[in-house]
Formats: sequence, structure tokens, C-alpha cells
Amino acid sequence: MWLNGTSDLIDLLKKKGVRRISLQFPEGLKRQSAKVTADLKNAGFDVIVSGDPCYGACDLALDTLRFADALVHFGHAPITRHPQVIFEPWKIDFDISVLTNALPLLKSTTIGLVTTVQHTHLIDSMDTFLQSKGITCIVAEGGGRTPERGQVLGCSFSAAKITGADEILFVGTGLFHPIGMAIATHARLIALDPLAGTAREVNGDAFMRRRFAVMEKARGAQSVGIIVSTKSGQQRMDLARRLASLSPAAVIILMREIIPGELLNLGFACYVNTTCPRLAYDDQVRFPVPVLSPPEFEILCGARSWDEYTLDEIV
Amino acid sequence: MWLNGTSDLIDLLKKKGVRRISLQFPEGLKRQSAKVTADLKNAGFDVIVSGDPCYGACDLALDTLRFADALVHFGHAPITRHPQVIFEPWKIDFDISVLTNALPLLKSTTIGLVTTVQHTHLIDSMDTFLQSKGITCIVAEGGGRTPERGQVLGCSFSAAKITGADEILFVGTGLFHPIGMAIATHARLIALDPLAGTAREVNGDAFMRRRFAVMEKARGAQSVGIIVSTKSGQQRMDLARRLASLSPAAVIILMREIIPGELLNLGFACYVNTTCPRLAYDDQVRFPVPVLSPPEFEILCGARSWDEYTLDEIV
Repeated sequence: MWLNGTSDLIDLLKKKGVRRISLQFPEGLKRQSAKVTADLKNAGFDVIVSGDPCYGACDLALDTLRFADALVHFGHAPITRHPQVIFEPWKIDFDISVLTNALPLLKSTTIGLVTTVQHTHLIDSMDTFLQSKGITCIVAEGGGRTPERGQVLGCSFSAAKITGADEILFVGTGLFHPIGMAIATHARLIALDPLAGTAREVNGDAFMRRRFAVMEKARGAQSVGIIVSTKSGQQRMDLARRLASLSPAAVIILMREIIPGELLNLGFACYVNTTCPRLAYDDQVRFPVPVLSPPEFEILCGARSWDEYTLDEIV
Repeated sequence: MWLNGTSDLIDLLKKKGVRRISLQFPEGLKRQSAKVTADLKNAGFDVIVSGDPCYGACDLALDTLRFADALVHFGHAPITRHPQVIFEPWKIDFDISVLTNALPLLKSTTIGLVTTVQHTHLIDSMDTFLQSKGITCIVAEGGGRTPERGQVLGCSFSAAKITGADEILFVGTGLFHPIGMAIATHARLIALDPLAGTAREVNGDAFMRRRFAVMEKARGAQSVGIIVSTKSGQQRMDLARRLASLSPAAVIILMREIIPGELLNLGFACYVNTTCPRLAYDDQVRFPVPVLSPPEFEILCGARSWDEYTLDEIV
């Protein structure tokens, strides 16, 4: 599944004049490390691989730069820039005509169009295809944490909000992004999985019911751990300090990986997650106690009204 | 189980004139964090807690110093010194007369005496007690990674080797240390658990059989990941580079926590562990493929003879 092989990368690294390289792959691509390392070694580079978990460009293995002149981060568009980090995208193609499967679900002739970084190189083709079916797409320009046109992240739905559309088509896998956008935009959300070819309408109702249940469990907790990430693009200490000031029972906890066993060891009655927002939402079943988002904690502390319930995004 | 409370610590911190403090506890003491934090906050300090796993003074949470003037590391004697780190021991007392239980197993009148950091404050009392029973103890002075008199670590058996004794009494919990010392010193090893009161002779035979089986499984592996730690007192990049030069199939991998799932994701056929030596020895059952110690890999590469099999220690 290596789209361009490593020759372009080798040319780029030679042009930059770096010799000692570190490589970082997200979980789904880690298996590529032996092959890519062999290619680069054969081309004369000194190579080390980051073996730590990686789920996004918010988690750059900057610690490897102690032993390398440049870090090549695979699979994601940049969230934060760093002079020694090279971002190598991992583009996944699909047959554009798969969008046909979403057409019966669309009610409007003007929609917002969003996708994830693996498919942003196809956004213009998707736009053109839908245009040919009589549908006008609004596509947000890239910016901030989402530099690609039409790109959304699990922690940033700006590209959906900016469209202002009442109906949004999300092209990508999984339901987290479309559910998040449904809650964040109040728009009608159609999700098309371009690899499986399945399309469906998505709303946030079941998600919200689960979150309210978690919040009820956390109410009256005698001790609260406010978790702050040390990862390059997830650290929100200012937010954590503000949240900690809402409760005398709050303690700020610095963590790299949010490991359920560590939350159990630390022994707090509930936690507030200021790291990757998806952790609280996706992984609650793995956690021994309630893990709240920052807005949820604010509601429990009376610092935000229930009507202002919103998904946590990193800006 | 907090021996002296936090008042001495508070006095020390005030004397040092630091106001922003981070706290790090090993796994068994993490639960103390809420109470200690509350005490320090009430005394006027700004406090954050490191929530990452911690198994020794080889793993200082230096990343917390981005938000704190001083890090208080609980439960271990220093392995590496750092101007901003304060080490707070966690001493565990026991009734010295429990040593009576080891007497029937001792064959010599001159023995080496070693223990772990929780009990080194009792080493003189142990020495005196055994003297009163007609047994002369050789106790190594502290130094290097083991600054306390008579102290051994899972990665450093110097205090046992230095005694030169043919018989060594280890006072502490668990069997890893005494098995390691039996292999490292070829001395007769008696282990006394001072809390359970049980004494037994220990040898390395079963341990060695298990290790030889792991080595056989690793023989002929087509790809080898040489794991290097980023932790403050475990990083051995020079050793890793030397090991990597022994095999064209070797790739250097930088990791913080050695997580079995990550080893599986990376997909190497075997690994060599240059981080905490205990990981390869204690946790093999958790790993999906063989994880060798550096000397074991050298033997498989023909760079060391089988007669020179030794336990990995960090010097």
C-alpha cells in the first residue's frame, strides 16, 4: 500500500542534506517500518524508528531528534509545524463514482463536503462528480489544525462549521467524525464510507445519551484528576488550570498515554480529559471511572449551562 | 504507610524557595498522590502530578519540569542526579529478629548481605543482629546506580559481586534479585522475605532453561528490533548501535514504554531489549515474540560464547 515508494522521500532527504533520520508511523502503518528503514539504510542514511503509540500529527516523536537530524512523520498532515519534521502523507484512493451511493440520502442541492486527510487529494474530484449530479458543494479552505481543503479531524470540525450548510456529506471511515459534526453543526449529516461503499444518515442522539449517563456518574465525585497531555499538539495546560480552579478537589495530572490501569492506580473518582478529545468519547468503556470532556466538567461545576453542551475541540 | 508525613518535605521545599512542584510516585504509591497534593496545596504550593507509569529512579518525569521548578520523586534512591529533582525515600521497617528465619539455611560464618532500597536504612541493624548470631557480614559501600550501603537493583548487582562472598543473604521481596545475583555471582543465594518471614535458597537453573528456550525461538529471525529507552536512566544508544552492527536485519527502535501490542504492531520477528533489563526476563510471557537481552543476542550472533552467558546489568 506504499503509494509512491521511498524514492521521492530519499530525494527530499538528500536535498535537505540530512543523514540521521528518525521515522514515525501511526498504528496502522507501523508494519511498514522494517521495509522503509531498509530502503533508507541502503540509500546511506542512519535510521531509527519511533516505537511509541501514535494516533496523529498531534503526537510528534520529537524525542527521537536527540538522535536524528530530521523526523519523518507518516500518514498525517501537519497540526503543529517543526523545522526538523517532514510530513509524508498516506493517501488512499477510491473510485469517485462510489459517491453515487450517497445521492439517495441527500435532500439539498447545496451541501458541505468534508473528508479525512487520507482522501483530501480527491476533494476536487468529489466536488466535480457531485456537481455533475446537480449538487453544489461548499468546501472549506485549509487552515489551523486542518491544513488541507475540506479536512476534518476528530478534534477539529472547523471545515464543517465554516460551510454553514444545513446538510453535510462526510466521506471517510468510522462514525466518530460525522457524529461529532452532527452535534457541532446541528446540520443533517450523511456519512459515506468510500471503501465499503456504504452511506447512512448519522445523528448525535445516542452519543448524547451516553455522555449524560457518564456525567451523572461523575456528579459529586470527591476527587478529580484533570489530565494534561505532554504530546506536541495536545498540551492544554492553560485550559487545565482554568478547569482545576472550578473545584477544590481537582488535581492536575500530566500523562503521555492515557492508560486505564494508570487511572485506576492514581485512584481519582473521576477524570477530566484535556488531551485528545476522542479519548473521553471513544474509550469510556475501557476506563474504570467517568472521564469527562472539559465542557462536561464545566456543566457539572455550574460554569456552563446544559444548553451550551458542546463537543470538545482543540483550537 | 506515609512514614514521616509531608511536613519535612514541605520544610525542604520552602528552604529551597521553590513554589511550583511536580510529584512522581512509583506504581505502588500512586494512590498517595491526592493526599500529598492536598497537603502541598494547603501549604501554598502549585502542584502537578506525573501520571505516567514509573518503576524506578531510572525513569524521572523530567517532562513535568516544563511546568514546575522541582520534581519530587518518591520511593527510590537516585540512579542519576538532576539539580531539580528531590528524592523522597519510602522506607519500610520490619522486626530485625525475622532474620532468625534465614539462619538454618546459612552454611558459612561470613556472608555477603544485600537488600533493596526500602530496607537499606536497616542494614546496620541487620549486620549487628547477624553478628550476634556469630555471622560476619560483608556489606558493600554505596556507589553508582546503588548509592545506599548494601543496595541492589534489578539492573545492578554490584553490591553482591563486590562482597566476593561464596554465600549471600538477600533481604527483600520477590525472587528476581536473588536469582539474578545467583547467576551473576555464582554464590549460594539465600533469600529472606522480611515481611512474609519466609526464607529459601534460590538458584538460576530454571531461569536459565527458560532463557535458552527463548534464544532458540529467536534463532534465525529475519528481522530484529533493537529497543532503546528514552527514560532518563535507561537510555543505552551506544550499546544499541554496537548490537545493531552485528546483524543487517537489525533496526533501532526508540520506545518509552515497552507495550506488547506495540511490538506486535511493529511486526519484527524478535527484539533485543537495551532498556530496563528486567523487562526481557520478567515479562516474556506478555510479549508476542522473543525479547532477548543484549548478551543473549551477542551469543546468537556469534559475538559471545555460551560460557560467557551473563545477566544484563546497566553500569
